[in-house]
Amino acid sequence: MVENQRQGASQLLRSLKPPGHAFILGVTGPPGTGKSTLVDRLIEPYRKRGLTVGVIAVDPTSPITGGALLGDRIRMASHAGDGGVYIRSMASRGWSGGLSRATSQVIQLMDAAGFDVILLETVGIGQSDIEVVSVSHAVLVVLMPGLGDDVQVSKAGLMEVGDVYVVNKADVEGSDSMVVSILGVVRSMKTRSPPVIKVSALTGEGLEKLGAAIEDVRLKFERGDLGLRLRSIKGMILETAKWNMMERLGLVSGEKADKLAQLVVGGKLTVDDAAARLLR
Amino acid sequence: MVENQRQGASQLLRSLKPPGHAFILGVTGPPGTGKSTLVDRLIEPYRKRGLTVGVIAVDPTSPITGGALLGDRIRMASHAGDGGVYIRSMASRGWSGGLSRATSQVIQLMDAAGFDVILLETVGIGQSDIEVVSVSHAVLVVLMPGLGDDVQVSKAGLMEVGDVYVVNKADVEGSDSMVVSILGVVRSMKTRSPPVIKVSALTGEGLEKLGAAIEDVRLKFERGDLGLRLRSIKGMILETAKWNMMERLGLVSGEKADKLAQLVVGGKLTVDDAAARLLR
Repeated sequence: MVENQRQGASQLLRSLKPPGHAFILGVTGPPGTGKSTLVDRLIEPYRKRGLTVGVIAVDPTSPITGGALLGDRIRMASHAGDGGVYIRSMASRGWSGGLSRATSQVIQLMDAAGFDVILLETVGIGQSDIEVVSVSHAVLVVLMPGLGDDVQVSKAGLMEVGDVYVVNKADVEGSDSMVVSILGVVRSMKTRSPPVIKVSALTGEGLEKLGAAIEDVRLKFERGDLGLRLRSIKGMILETAKWNMMERLGLVSGEKADKLAQLVVGGKLTVDDAAARLLR
Repeated sequence: MVENQRQGASQLLRSLKPPGHAFILGVTGPPGTGKSTLVDRLIEPYRKRGLTVGVIAVDPTSPITGGALLGDRIRMASHAGDGGVYIRSMASRGWSGGLSRATSQVIQLMDAAGFDVILLETVGIGQSDIEVVSVSHAVLVVLMPGLGDDVQVSKAGLMEVGDVYVVNKADVEGSDSMVVSILGVVRSMKTRSPPVIKVSALTGEGLEKLGAAIEDVRLKFERGDLGLRLRSIKGMILETAKWNMMERLGLVSGEKADKLAQLVVGGKLTVDDAAARLLR
């Protein structure tokens, strides 16, 4: 109901208790860095401690690569028989803003359903997709050797969102220089210094260290840290508001935009002025 | 000035004559389908007829794949010494909405500078990036064998935007079944039936047929077709308006969103209601 914005969805959401039970961990990074495998490896330690885990995999590229959806499910099949794990793959339906609203709402559902931990995996390709993780209490940015230098990663907007930087595929050549490169960027940050951890989701190397870094934040969350709670809720509000704005613009813009376009074609208005008038 | 929204940019844009000289051809499709090579091959015929060509390559993934920017330039190096060709690569700077505003403005600049044809290449990965081509007079959707079936392509939102469907890499196995697949979708369309053309940007196969299909639209544009002109201008207005909305939301949302988040944490407001209030 919620994903497809069916009738009754907003009443359903209204009937839920306020979010705040689940610890939300965002996992983002360029395609091919092994995010799904890493998410899969993160599930087990939580289950061992008796915590239930919901996974939301957001992949706007999946309709194109074909089968990424299925791929996620196969890769996470180790948890298929476990009632304490729920995995939901969401592909981009239309505009990725719609996706961010739906994501924020599915998180609210999972939270109300009592999941202790929610793992939100998004493909960090373009800012609008990266922003989906703004609803998280902590964000892992997953990188790997061979992505280019630190400048490339910085440009992609990934250096602003991470609470922990993970260099995955530690077994691949160049992982050390990638770590050094990211450390260079981290050391130049003024307000924070997120850890940089080398792991191999495949062999298990570094996973314990990564788990400990995440657990630090989760315990802070469990102790009721207000800043963490506000951060996630604020992200949800902003993502929802953005989508609603776009939707509203779509609803009002048809005929008005036609008339404004005629004025621009006639040289009576610039495109920018027409856009400003449309918003008014 | 315009790309970086420097001071004076809006005055500059205001001083331009209204857009409408250049024929704008959008080229979009999944990564790796050979869009840049195809764009490169489309330039030559225009130059032979004495038309000047501006190219805008929008690639939000380039900071990540590392060097896609440079790659575009290298692939188009055949026109490096030609004063009648101007190539501009634009990477995503922050949110892709910002990119669409800048794209629409750079098009206005190129148009006013007297370019006869503007080729706008975008990576069709997620709806917000696909929508960048809405400023075009005609849109080529570039596909290739091995992308998955027609359902995958439809889901990606690519079947709504194309005026011509190009199956590139005709030399690769599976291109015929890809053509059949896309034809199936096209035949089910109610309001239009865009052509599906098999080409090989590499060997040149099918390029003449493709050129003719595009030229049909360009001549219509040159004869002053009002519908075509309004379509492009409307796209520019909407893309600009969208960006301005997002920017405005960012400006007003800081403190207000904090307060609303506190109400949600306290259980006094749902996320959706908070988003609605923020917009008010």
